[in-house]
Amino acid sequence: MSGPRRLAVYPGSFDPLHNGHVDIIDRCLPIFDDLLVAVLRNEEKQPLFSVEERVEILHQTLAGRARVRVESFSGLLVDFMDRVGAITIVRGLRALSDFDYEFQMALMNRRLAPRIETVFMMPKEEYSYVSSRLVKEVFMLGGTIDGLVPPNVVERLRGKVRA
Amino acid sequence: MSGPRRLAVYPGSFDPLHNGHVDIIDRCLPIFDDLLVAVLRNEEKQPLFSVEERVEILHQTLAGRARVRVESFSGLLVDFMDRVGAITIVRGLRALSDFDYEFQMALMNRRLAPRIETVFMMPKEEYSYVSSRLVKEVFMLGGTIDGLVPPNVVERLRGKVRA
Amino acid sequence: MSGPRRLAVYPGSFDPLHNGHVDIIDRCLPIFDDLLVAVLRNEEKQPLFSVEERVEILHQTLAGRARVRVESFSGLLVDFMDRVGAITIVRGLRALSDFDYEFQMALMNRRLAPRIETVFMMPKEEYSYVSSRLVKEVFMLGGTIDGLVPPNVVERLRGKVRA
Amino acid sequence: MSGPRRLAVYPGSFDPLHNGHVDIIDRCLPIFDDLLVAVLRNEEKQPLFSVEERVEILHQTLAGRARVRVESFSGLLVDFMDRVGAITIVRGLRALSDFDYEFQMALMNRRLAPRIETVFMMPKEEYSYVSSRLVKEVFMLGGTIDGLVPPNVVERLRGKVRA
Amino acid sequence: MSGPRRLAVYPGSFDPLHNGHVDIIDRCLPIFDDLLVAVLRNEEKQPLFSVEERVEILHQTLAGRARVRVESFSGLLVDFMDRVGAITIVRGLRALSDFDYEFQMALMNRRLAPRIETVFMMPKEEYSYVSSRLVKEVFMLGGTIDGLVPPNVVERLRGKVRA
Amino acid sequence: MSGPRRLAVYPGSFDPLHNGHVDIIDRCLPIFDDLLVAVLRNEEKQPLFSVEERVEILHQTLAGRARVRVESFSGLLVDFMDRVGAITIVRGLRALSDFDYEFQMALMNRRLAPRIETVFMMPKEEYSYVSSRLVKEVFMLGGTIDGLVPPNVVERLRGKVRA
Repeated sequence: MSGPRRLAVYPGSFDPLHNGHVDIIDRCLPIFDDLLVAVLRNEEKQPLFSVEERVEILHQTLAGRARVRVESFSGLLVDFMDRVGAITIVRGLRALSDFDYEFQMALMNRRLAPRIETVFMMPKEEYSYVSSRLVKEVFMLGGTIDGLVPPNVVERLRGKVRA
Repeated sequence: MSGPRRLAVYPGSFDPLHNGHVDIIDRCLPIFDDLLVAVLRNEEKQPLFSVEERVEILHQTLAGRARVRVESFSGLLVDFMDRVGAITIVRGLRALSDFDYEFQMALMNRRLAPRIETVFMMPKEEYSYVSSRLVKEVFMLGGTIDGLVPPNVVERLRGKVRA
Repeated sequence: MSGPRRLAVYPGSFDPLHNGHVDIIDRCLPIFDDLLVAVLRNEEKQPLFSVEERVEILHQTLAGRARVRVESFSGLLVDFMDRVGAITIVRGLRALSDFDYEFQMALMNRRLAPRIETVFMMPKEEYSYVSSRLVKEVFMLGGTIDGLVPPNVVERLRGKVRA
Repeated sequence: MSGPRRLAVYPGSFDPLHNGHVDIIDRCLPIFDDLLVAVLRNEEKQPLFSVEERVEILHQTLAGRARVRVESFSGLLVDFMDRVGAITIVRGLRALSDFDYEFQMALMNRRLAPRIETVFMMPKEEYSYVSSRLVKEVFMLGGTIDGLVPPNVVERLRGKVRA
Repeated sequence: MSGPRRLAVYPGSFDPLHNGHVDIIDRCLPIFDDLLVAVLRNEEKQPLFSVEERVEILHQTLAGRARVRVESFSGLLVDFMDRVGAITIVRGLRALSDFDYEFQMALMNRRLAPRIETVFMMPKEEYSYVSSRLVKEVFMLGGTIDGLVPPNVVERLRGKVRA
Repeated sequence: MSGPRRLAVYPGSFDPLHNGHVDIIDRCLPIFDDLLVAVLRNEEKQPLFSVEERVEILHQTLAGRARVRVESFSGLLVDFMDRVGAITIVRGLRALSDFDYEFQMALMNRRLAPRIETVFMMPKEEYSYVSSRLVKEVFMLGGTIDGLVPPNVVERLRGKVRA
């Protein structure tokens, strides 16, 4: 018995990718047929890594996962969803998340495109406190972030600091 | 292109079913191939409707939806998931939900059965304040609950009161 | 320059009245022309004080306040609002309140009677942790509740214990 | 029977006005005799619309409402309240609000001027996710905001973009 | 250099003890000189284990820890604190805790005995969803609770069920 | 009977010190033998007072308290803890705190240095709405902050404005 292939989109800034993100990606794979990790090109904010670098990091980290692909997007997420033919947005929701922001975005996206649905998934508890912002902060102050981000992110952060 | 059929389980007490539940069911249908609404037979709590009545109400209400079926269960939800061969639990999450309870259950279920994942979905904002408990309370005090529950629930509630 | 007299209704169980309640009452008086404290006659719950006792305690405590009156009600609050010709419900909202419950009730009441509006007011910070339940619990364990409830409530609680 | 005219002040940035704001204004009118919408002139933040434009938008939108007037203010809100002779501040409180901020401001204002009281009101659920920031963001990315803001706000936003 | 011996009290129902409790106990030991685990004898609630059983379980589990002792108490916690000469209450605070309850109790205890202070500590993230109630529920439904409670608790729960 | 001297570290920006901070400091003194107030030298943020000024304000305010000392630090807090030989971080937690931030930091610090523990304490309710940011904002708009900050902070703020 089979159904249509189901594509989910996992959007975010991924600046940088951390293990909480990777955990959500791995939790999506048994539930959906294909996963598209969508990296937001946000022109206004000053990211640490360029969109191109962030896509590259994701490619490296997710190399072994056959049903995942990575793309960048700009503009409205719901327009991007239409272009790729997806109706399901995945977002991680931690006990320490900014729920209000997540819910506001999900409801606004629903209004902009009623056919598109957001589903929330929980990362492992041990990543409940890990965010891209905190990872950067700790790294900049000299703290170790091994185990919180994939190894290639540590390397690239070291490269940024040397530069 | 096709994938395996994906079955999601939407568990709850449904005592009684309300339109926020129906809304979640309808939001699942585009995302999953099949949906099983699983009615908890909780021996300890004194429900208003018996499990049999609750299953019947669901059958009536969901009659036109081809890919939904209804079953009751007792015992651990994760054991029931195994019996029906499903790995995805769906739960509604409202801005006014009891997040702590939902998250505790999801994490406990993950520990009991790591292959099983809980995904959270948001009902329409207009159902953000609707719960089975509040619906019963308002009905018992003589308030109208039309529009908050399916018509057959209103009828059955009237039957309960007359009895 | 004058306007119509504005009546607000402050509903609750008041089992027993505590100083956080009195504080909200006193904050309403400059804002509204008349205040009706509405004591819920909840047949199902086993209250410590009967509705008649709770009304009496309120009468004693609020004796000096000319624009406040006290009544009991049963059934739906919005039906009571209609009977007394009021459109404004007042509820206290503390940082440690059960927001979800308060919001659910306010939205349900709005649905039942769209002309009726709930306004939320904040008690003094020093009452942020005072609830009827906690006051009873502390008293029963022998703790002092002076300063948390009006003096006549302490007396009556002593009477209950002796009885 | 009549009482003194009761003036409430609804302060905010209104950059820009959205339908959640208009909803709160319309909910105030049955409860208070007069409403003053007070537009904060915040010199430090870079608003999208000037104070003059924001006051003008409010004037246009609220033209038919006889008991509402609009003014701008700078400095402490409680000083402005004194100048206009008002004691009641109205703030919208959504399930997705920043409660902490709202409560901190209300308690600070009470300390600065104990005679001044803040009352919180709930907008319609369908506006629970609408904020000025999100409206601007969606518009800038090309999304439709019809139904979320008054028509004149859409026009003026288009004008800003063309400029 | 030395100071006075510092005794902290960790109160609770411990019905039954779980590994989140043990984790808090172990986190207290480096911070305080002595720890007294205080088991509440709550006459009104129907506990699964008697106070005597709960104290015994704690004794067994904590046998190797030299600076911890276990006692039961009834009545007000602050009176018990006085009897044992302690001024510091320790409570676990998880992201999924009932903050409101914890804060209300801490503030009420401070009012009853201003010299007594409550300090909150965080258990390991992996215990963030573990509560005595949930442990009992899962066990009763036949789920495994190994790793969530000490081994002697599993044995005793089995004994209860056989009885 | 005596134990090792127990040093707690109370870290923060203290820009400026307010009475909620002083309250936490005074609550630490009966619980710990020594307290080190650690002022963060955050190069990136533009503070109102320099680290040197903030340390000086703390010295003046805490002059009479024998067991408190003040130091500034930069870099990771856990590295500073090691340098001063402390294992206990104290943080204030108000009902209106940013819990998520506090918990994320505490869990990250635990990961960076598992021997270091964070304990949370509650300031007096009357300081529940007081933050450095709000104090600065109110002062800049001409509001009185007497009673919210120590007298020397008011003086120095006046000096800043005159300058």
